Amino acid sequence: MAPSSNVFNLATSSASQILSLESIRSVLQRLEDTIVFQLIERAQFARNAPMYYPGAFPELIEKEGWHASWVEWFLKETEGAHAKCRRWDAPDEYPFTKPDLLPKAILPPIKYPKLLYDHGINVNTDIYTHYRDVIVPTITSDDDDGQYGSSAVRDVETLAALSRRIHFGMFVSESKFRSDPQAFIEPIRKEDREKLEALITKPAVEQALLVRLREKARVYGQDLDKAVGSLATQGQGATAGTAAARPASSSGEKHKIDADDVVHIYQDFVIPMTKRVEVDYLIKRLDHLSPSQLAKIEAGEGYAEEA
Amino acid sequence: MAPSSNVFNLATSSASQILSLESIRSVLQRLEDTIVFQLIERAQFARNAPMYYPGAFPELIEKEGWHASWVEWFLKETEGAHAKCRRWDAPDEYPFTKPDLLPKAILPPIKYPKLLYDHGINVNTDIYTHYRDVIVPTITSDDDDGQYGSSAVRDVETLAALSRRIHFGMFVSESKFRSDPQAFIEPIRKEDREKLEALITKPAVEQALLVRLREKARVYGQDLDKAVGSLATQGQGATAGTAAARPASSSGEKHKIDADDVVHIYQDFVIPMTKRVEVDYLIKRLDHLSPSQLAKIEAGEGYAEEA
Repeated sequence: MAPSSNVFNLATSSASQILSLESIRSVLQRLEDTIVFQLIERAQFARNAPMYYPGAFPELIEKEGWHASWVEWFLKETEGAHAKCRRWDAPDEYPFTKPDLLPKAILPPIKYPKLLYDHGINVNTDIYTHYRDVIVPTITSDDDDGQYGSSAVRDVETLAALSRRIHFGMFVSESKFRSDPQAFIEPIRKEDREKLEALITKPAVEQALLVRLREKARVYGQDLDKAVGSLATQGQGATAGTAAARPASSSGEKHKIDADDVVHIYQDFVIPMTKRVEVDYLIKRLDHLSPSQLAKIEAGEGYAEEA
Repeated sequence: MAPSSNVFNLATSSASQILSLESIRSVLQRLEDTIVFQLIERAQFARNAPMYYPGAFPELIEKEGWHASWVEWFLKETEGAHAKCRRWDAPDEYPFTKPDLLPKAILPPIKYPKLLYDHGINVNTDIYTHYRDVIVPTITSDDDDGQYGSSAVRDVETLAALSRRIHFGMFVSESKFRSDPQAFIEPIRKEDREKLEALITKPAVEQALLVRLREKARVYGQDLDKAVGSLATQGQGATAGTAAARPASSSGEKHKIDADDVVHIYQDFVIPMTKRVEVDYLIKRLDHLSPSQLAKIEAGEGYAEEA
């Protein structure tokens, strides 16, 4: 009884399918789950600060000529493997590693529909810095458990999910621009970032997101071992089919992550960073219109993709 | 407000700390969460059957000389990066890739305490086959969404978690052997696998595990987007601080994975496979005792680690 996949195929779906706000919203909401899961997975390990110090492992310098941190080396290795499978060709994937350090794709390129203009935006350096300096210290204990490999695997996954979430904002920008391009012309020409932000932001949606995210962090972050474990062990007659214990509704909940922390990660970082990317993308949008596209928009005839 | 790390350090903890049943149980329970999370993450993508066909990608044959499947190639690439960080030196980590295809470690070896004898057990081929043929078809839709990279990343993570869980059984075997070695001598000499299994199995613990696992799959597998999302959007006055909707207790729950499926994965595969590993390990345990250790055990003086 497998649920049906609700993932759209970036290569075979049409641009208008991908850029529908409904599609975008479903991707962003599903990514919340992934981000919460990955944060919980990282939080089981200690902070392990040396992982983030450049040059902390002399062997990486000697044998790999790698002067950055352990985690950045891990990113490079992982992203290199994924480069061979053309991950970074996809319009929703951005590497943390400098492209010249990544190998070429082995598989032939996939032909994606024309979605975004050729923007060159990649805010992963800022994502990495904030993750290292704020997120990891917030969600982990200030300790060292030696689990550098396991922690780095989680770091790579969490960073990739945050990066995909934040860069996905460009689909929102493109979608909103296409549906009412005329509204964007003046603020783009005036480089009015505030106005542009207002055009793509819905405070009610943002509030709903934070409510939903808190609930996800609370529900997925429950530590069910203590509550169910002990109860089930006592009741030795319990069969696998009857889950008598429902710690979700009891008061003395134990949590693997603090829901407030997760909400703050979005409120203080993911949401503002996404807006920055969205506006960065919009601010140059007119440069990538042909004269006839621009004329049509100015005449109130809307946006038309060029053949 | 980060929770304290409850991960023990395999390199700096003592053998008796690591082999305490309490430590082992906490690792196994935490791994349940990881396995459930990873299954949920994989289930969002379609089955993507060609990923598992040997030779389905001619480029992998031509450019990499790789005749096995896409997923196995992905495993090799990922496990290769981890080999450089000495992951496979750890006594609780086993690669799916043949060791001669993996690069050497860059970092100097970690000195682990003597925990297990030099056993050479690795059931990952069986884990991979069952995962490919039973688990993936059970938890995914029988479809192709083209998300081979994303799906393979989940496959690698899920397989690693299943492998660690199953091979961890050897710690259970060693722990139980050390605490009452005399009881194991006769069944080992008689190669009585049933008796050995009975010595390390507690049906009540197993039942409790299945109850707990069902609860984890049910709780972590909830799709909170529909329930909380719509409710929160309606109540635009709701602030981030008040999670009014508690879909966990409502009836019309939507799920990202079927809790029955997760229970079956453990009941039909993880638990029996763990027992096989546990017994495989025990059956040769006496060969790795010195004559004086064996004499002590036979005299009822218990197990003593050699200096």
